[in-house]
Amino acid sequence: MKNLIAIAVLLITVVSCHINQKATQTGFPFILPKEKPNRPMSAAMERIYTAYESAEPQYNELFSQFKYSELKGFDYHGHDGTVSRRDPSKIIRYNGKYYVWYTHRQTPTPPMGAEKCTDEIPSSDWDLSEVWYATSDDGFTWQEQGVAIKRPEKPLVGWRSVTTADILEWKGKFYLYYQGFMEASGKRGDDCPVAVSWADSPDGPWTPYNKVVIANGAKGEWDQYSIHDPYPLVHDRKIYIYYKSDFGEAPDKVRMAGLATADNPLGPFTKCPLNPVITSGHETTLFPYKKGVAALVYKDGPEHNTIQYAEDWVNFKIASITEMMPWAGAPYVPDAFTDTKDGRGITWGLAHFINFNQDARTYHSVMVRFDCDLSRDLNDPEMKQHRVIHAPDVYYRQGLSKKQLIRIKEENKNKK
Amino acid sequence: MKNLIAIAVLLITVVSCHINQKATQTGFPFILPKEKPNRPMSAAMERIYTAYESAEPQYNELFSQFKYSELKGFDYHGHDGTVSRRDPSKIIRYNGKYYVWYTHRQTPTPPMGAEKCTDEIPSSDWDLSEVWYATSDDGFTWQEQGVAIKRPEKPLVGWRSVTTADILEWKGKFYLYYQGFMEASGKRGDDCPVAVSWADSPDGPWTPYNKVVIANGAKGEWDQYSIHDPYPLVHDRKIYIYYKSDFGEAPDKVRMAGLATADNPLGPFTKCPLNPVITSGHETTLFPYKKGVAALVYKDGPEHNTIQYAEDWVNFKIASITEMMPWAGAPYVPDAFTDTKDGRGITWGLAHFINFNQDARTYHSVMVRFDCDLSRDLNDPEMKQHRVIHAPDVYYRQGLSKKQLIRIKEENKNKK
Repeated sequence: MKNLIAIAVLLITVVSCHINQKATQTGFPFILPKEKPNRPMSAAMERIYTAYESAEPQYNELFSQFKYSELKGFDYHGHDGTVSRRDPSKIIRYNGKYYVWYTHRQTPTPPMGAEKCTDEIPSSDWDLSEVWYATSDDGFTWQEQGVAIKRPEKPLVGWRSVTTADILEWKGKFYLYYQGFMEASGKRGDDCPVAVSWADSPDGPWTPYNKVVIANGAKGEWDQYSIHDPYPLVHDRKIYIYYKSDFGEAPDKVRMAGLATADNPLGPFTKCPLNPVITSGHETTLFPYKKGVAALVYKDGPEHNTIQYAEDWVNFKIASITEMMPWAGAPYVPDAFTDTKDGRGITWGLAHFINFNQDARTYHSVMVRFDCDLSRDLNDPEMKQHRVIHAPDVYYRQGLSKKQLIRIKEENKNKK
Repeated sequence: MKNLIAIAVLLITVVSCHINQKATQTGFPFILPKEKPNRPMSAAMERIYTAYESAEPQYNELFSQFKYSELKGFDYHGHDGTVSRRDPSKIIRYNGKYYVWYTHRQTPTPPMGAEKCTDEIPSSDWDLSEVWYATSDDGFTWQEQGVAIKRPEKPLVGWRSVTTADILEWKGKFYLYYQGFMEASGKRGDDCPVAVSWADSPDGPWTPYNKVVIANGAKGEWDQYSIHDPYPLVHDRKIYIYYKSDFGEAPDKVRMAGLATADNPLGPFTKCPLNPVITSGHETTLFPYKKGVAALVYKDGPEHNTIQYAEDWVNFKIASITEMMPWAGAPYVPDAFTDTKDGRGITWGLAHFINFNQDARTYHSVMVRFDCDLSRDLNDPEMKQHRVIHAPDVYYRQGLSKKQLIRIKEENKNKK
């Protein structure tokens, strides 16, 4: 509130350069003050002292670059499109090992689209999939352990595909939340609800609850069709599940994230009436930070390429602006389930590259490791560099399309 | 002010999810309303209706992707580092041709650093340079016309190097503002003031004013050492020059932009007392937009990767968040000098790639064309895509350093 008043006062008293030109204040100091100086300032200068944790990104714990490393231990059948791994869960540590769950597809062909798909031929990259898991000592080399959640018999939820799992530990038991498909993707199969299975250990066996645990919204509501990427954390002695929904009509499809909370892992879940709570981004990537929760927001929407923070776990603000963020980022979150009031942040996780070959004929996804410094316990200056430096070829690959070249040629002709 | 009150009311009345859970409002609508709906909303949802021109980037005139094209017509001597072109001026159209001015270096060797430089060997990429210019029919193929601003005799301002020019048209005359170096870069030579030359035609000849036209700040002020990248526009019957200054001490060097205005191209220039007015970014890239001015802000600072807007030409706010922005972007700005109250925006310009070979031994820069849709007169859906899609190798190139790998190995060891 104090910041709002300060901004309002500034707006009223210092509307433009000229009004204030007669003021005799000296120039802004050569050493950027750490604390907000008591002097009239431009709106942009005012903002760097009020909107972010620090006026300089390198001192903002919620600013980071992202570094990427190839994973060892996963076979992709020569990257021919018949094996895909994507949408990793957040990573947990158990009995001295890291665990991750993910969508695993192994099919006779690459995805063939909704028209050509059969009971064995996938429509999309995440069709006819199962949830598999892998373990690791170091986060770089992984041992694939096989299936965690099998597709159940028709007509149970998920008979067509089970995907996009995430993990919760609650009172000594483990819960995997995932999307259960009852129709091929592309035939409105993505309109799937959230299912859950539980186990006494991350190694399973997993017992399916066999009921929808977070239902789609009512007709006409933003989440009427899809509840994707369920992402559980523990806060305030409750289970907080953030989820993504696709809504709107093409070409103005919108992706936003909402929140549902429950006292019990099997529900009932209550949706936050202020949903959606994150207006940009694609998949869900969150972690406890101080008293609140932080989110990686990328790909879609007006606030993509940001890291956001909500002290009350509901009302998110932009904490930093960055680039080259992990897609489907799934961090190692040591305090995901501790109901912490002092969240420490993250330093690494897994993510995915969709369409790894950049070729629809061999469409498949590959998991990758990312590292960052979004942790209050790490200070890595290399992660706090302000910018990514790309070689020129990376820019040239973002070239004009033929259509655009024709448009520009036409515009030049009209100039003459 | 209305927005601020709305946000304040929201903060007070709807602090969290739980307080409001008893409200009976239905879920958010499936079709994203174009106008802000009258219902309690999360802070993030409130913001997309109040902070940006549109809740969806594709309808925000100040949101764009950037596409890059190689230029034809410039020879770089086999990219051996002896020829460099960088820091293009904004582009103007005159007698049916496009004109651009830029820093041109042609030296016996690539830059050798401040220690090894001589009267003929450059210290930095912009040392021992001149301002050259080129013309074009289409903006892709350029005819280099040769020198516009030569280095004057010692000890005149710019005897060591003249660089980073930008153009003003004012009452039928043309003015080139540029940095005049009196010492090699790296020996505090970058502490250079702004010089100006004028001509009756963009083809010259250019008459040097031979005086400092925008002076550095007083001792202890933010711009005491450098006034870089002078960028003139015409507004309110005055000349508005935005400029960048480097300040602070390593490792916390800061780059921000200020404003100086004058009634006459040769000054005197009055600095805005609210300087700095842009807190992030690197070089200066601005253009009239509606009643105000828009800026591309990239590379450095907490608000890099944004496009900003100031209706009063002083108090900038974030208009959009984007990525892969042009460095030293120098757009074609048809209404740069028309004192417009209805700025139309930009669709293309030139920029540069510094260290083109990514190799210090052949350090030089190359100019490149960028295209975008930041124009109210263009609607190019390809430019309004929300995201850049990179191939996996672009991510893998952003890999962990050896130092980081050792740090992570150590952390893993300590876990056991």
